[in-house]
Amino acid sequence: MIYVTRRERFSAAHRMYREDWTDEKNLEVFGKCSNPNWHGHNYVLFVTVKGNPAKELGFFINISKLKQIIKDRIIEKIDHKNLNTEVSFMQGKIATTENLAIAIWNELKPEIEKEGATLHRIRISETENNSIEYYGEEY
Amino acid sequence: MIYVTRRERFSAAHRMYREDWTDEKNLEVFGKCSNPNWHGHNYVLFVTVKGNPAKELGFFINISKLKQIIKDRIIEKIDHKNLNTEVSFMQGKIATTENLAIAIWNELKPEIEKEGATLHRIRISETENNSIEYYGEEY
Amino acid sequence: MIYVTRRERFSAAHRMYREDWTDEKNLEVFGKCSNPNWHGHNYVLFVTVKGNPAKELGFFINISKLKQIIKDRIIEKIDHKNLNTEVSFMQGKIATTENLAIAIWNELKPEIEKEGATLHRIRISETENNSIEYYGEEY
Amino acid sequence: MIYVTRRERFSAAHRMYREDWTDEKNLEVFGKCSNPNWHGHNYVLFVTVKGNPAKELGFFINISKLKQIIKDRIIEKIDHKNLNTEVSFMQGKIATTENLAIAIWNELKPEIEKEGATLHRIRISETENNSIEYYGEEY
Amino acid sequence: MIYVTRRERFSAAHRMYREDWTDEKNLEVFGKCSNPNWHGHNYVLFVTVKGNPAKELGFFINISKLKQIIKDRIIEKIDHKNLNTEVSFMQGKIATTENLAIAIWNELKPEIEKEGATLHRIRISETENNSIEYYGEEY
Amino acid sequence: MIYVTRRERFSAAHRMYREDWTDEKNLEVFGKCSNPNWHGHNYVLFVTVKGNPAKELGFFINISKLKQIIKDRIIEKIDHKNLNTEVSFMQGKIATTENLAIAIWNELKPEIEKEGATLHRIRISETENNSIEYYGEEY
Repeated sequence: MIYVTRRERFSAAHRMYREDWTDEKNLEVFGKCSNPNWHGHNYVLFVTVKGNPAKELGFFINISKLKQIIKDRIIEKIDHKNLNTEVSFMQGKIATTENLAIAIWNELKPEIEKEGATLHRIRISETENNSIEYYGEEY
Repeated sequence: MIYVTRRERFSAAHRMYREDWTDEKNLEVFGKCSNPNWHGHNYVLFVTVKGNPAKELGFFINISKLKQIIKDRIIEKIDHKNLNTEVSFMQGKIATTENLAIAIWNELKPEIEKEGATLHRIRISETENNSIEYYGEEY
Repeated sequence: MIYVTRRERFSAAHRMYREDWTDEKNLEVFGKCSNPNWHGHNYVLFVTVKGNPAKELGFFINISKLKQIIKDRIIEKIDHKNLNTEVSFMQGKIATTENLAIAIWNELKPEIEKEGATLHRIRISETENNSIEYYGEEY
Repeated sequence: MIYVTRRERFSAAHRMYREDWTDEKNLEVFGKCSNPNWHGHNYVLFVTVKGNPAKELGFFINISKLKQIIKDRIIEKIDHKNLNTEVSFMQGKIATTENLAIAIWNELKPEIEKEGATLHRIRISETENNSIEYYGEEY
Repeated sequence: MIYVTRRERFSAAHRMYREDWTDEKNLEVFGKCSNPNWHGHNYVLFVTVKGNPAKELGFFINISKLKQIIKDRIIEKIDHKNLNTEVSFMQGKIATTENLAIAIWNELKPEIEKEGATLHRIRISETENNSIEYYGEEY
Repeated sequence: MIYVTRRERFSAAHRMYREDWTDEKNLEVFGKCSNPNWHGHNYVLFVTVKGNPAKELGFFINISKLKQIIKDRIIEKIDHKNLNTEVSFMQGKIATTENLAIAIWNELKPEIEKEGATLHRIRISETENNSIEYYGEEY
């Protein structure tokens, strides 16, 4: 079993808040990340897939293919966008990096499986100090 | 003459556009950076100051003091904010990193000089691939 | 289940040695790291905690809270200090990064659990080439 | 149980291709990585070993020893070399990073075990965007 | 005057040697970099241009344009190629990073000037420890 | 004229203080960096030299030679040492990074000139946020 990780980057605006709360309540819970005028990040996305390399190829997924899937399914829809208002797979969700990781997992899983590989991990680094990992574990 | 560089980071939303242009015209000139719904970045700011170390101290500016000036004058006003609508020193300017570097230069110069040092360079990295430097040269 | 990693940094002096050994014996076993006049590092600490995000919040631990715990329990006690002589939770231990990771695990575990989360991993990078991970496994 | 990771670097030329295929077929499957005139990379190798620190030492493997093993067994044979034609442990294999990770695992495993430690993971980063991990799982 | 730096990356094979020298003589002068079977690197290229931002735009060169010039004139011709045998602008030159920086300067200068900007610096990092800068100074 | 930069790293303990001051006075001026029990850093040293590449070689200084000079003159004397008490070229000086950069300049200048090259800049990064540059300018 081999694990392949592809890194991609995107820049987006977001705001952590609940519509049914006042700005004051949002500020209290989410801090400066709830700024009603938005802020943004250079997110770094690491997608790890696993599989058994074919003897005759030396790999189990062509990394160009993996890159293309991530570009088509995620980067095109999220780069230079507003996570809260413009990204289809984040609609109705609080725009935390935790929820973003789960949403990206759900977007990519079927596409990776079509290629005969298994999605292993989504890691998103929001800043150089904060990052999130999700392995598809239900809860 | 010694040069001291302090790195600070901030996350902000912005949009590159002119109010007197249509969204189409803005898109044509500024590309995806003109998205009306905002996007954002983890900006990295490098402030370089120069001076002659005092023999009895081994430095010409206390780096804690330099850090404090940058925090008070820049980071507090810009971190987790919207560059276009919330940052006083960017009002009336197109929110390019070029203009941001010049504005930060103008904010910091008098404060640095009060400490007996000279502001040498403002460098801002917007993404890992794009960065801007300004040395205070008039034009 | 979501994993959240917070990065913090500290600079400290240390020396790897046993008091009951001569300097020669310490040099033989620990190499230049046993220098009796100390040396030091910029340590980078990665604390990973895991939990199930609350639907109504989109997270299971506020990262500001996690940051505060690490600052209070670790960084305040260790930054710009001597690991061998000044850090309470390293007393009586050889100042290896291995022992440091275990000690930090023990310091943080109860605090993380008070927040309803689970400590998953302590990773410490001593230099860009050497790093240590600990998952709390007894031995 | 403690995990120790040592990072080493090497620069090498390679080409992904099968001798029994035409250049066209190789280009179709392996893309620009099959260039018959070679290309190359700065590979970054992360070797992770695990074990139980001895109470009287605070470590289970001397990192200088680990470094020496990696230098002797891998770096000396691979740095500034051609992966396809000059590296003994890659003979007869397609020069993918996947196969390289498995080959390095096999080279290092017995040496690590002689030291009383267990090889846990080989990670190779080929570019800043692409990396491979192998944990010795048969398939 | 503002300075804009664009980073691009390419992976290439090369060999430092003179055709009119024996392999032994080449080895003596160029060391392991003269390996007749090639080796390679992940080169990182930083192109810095300078100019005066237009008041009505907030920039003097569209960074997308700068990126396109570098891609068309350099990256397309050099990425996943052999510097010695396949790159037109390196023909007849010893494949040192020094010569590469000068050659890239000469390739880019007229293109940058067509955009009304001035080429300021070419910086190439060959490994994380070695880098070269060229400012167009004749000698 | 070409500029070559070599990066080297060293880990050292230090303390910023004046012997003729009390610990209280030192603490007031130098802050936590004056801890009497020492602290330390992973310093990163960048040495930049300049010269005119020889046509027949494609370089003006062999980077292996540059590396050797830095190792012999600086790294051997400073790595895993105490800057205040063990490093000959820092004796009688306050152990600031500013003074360290000047001292390293003075150590390296004659050696670089023996190679027919010119020392251009010493840059030392003390932490990821603080760095110092010195160009040999008298004051």
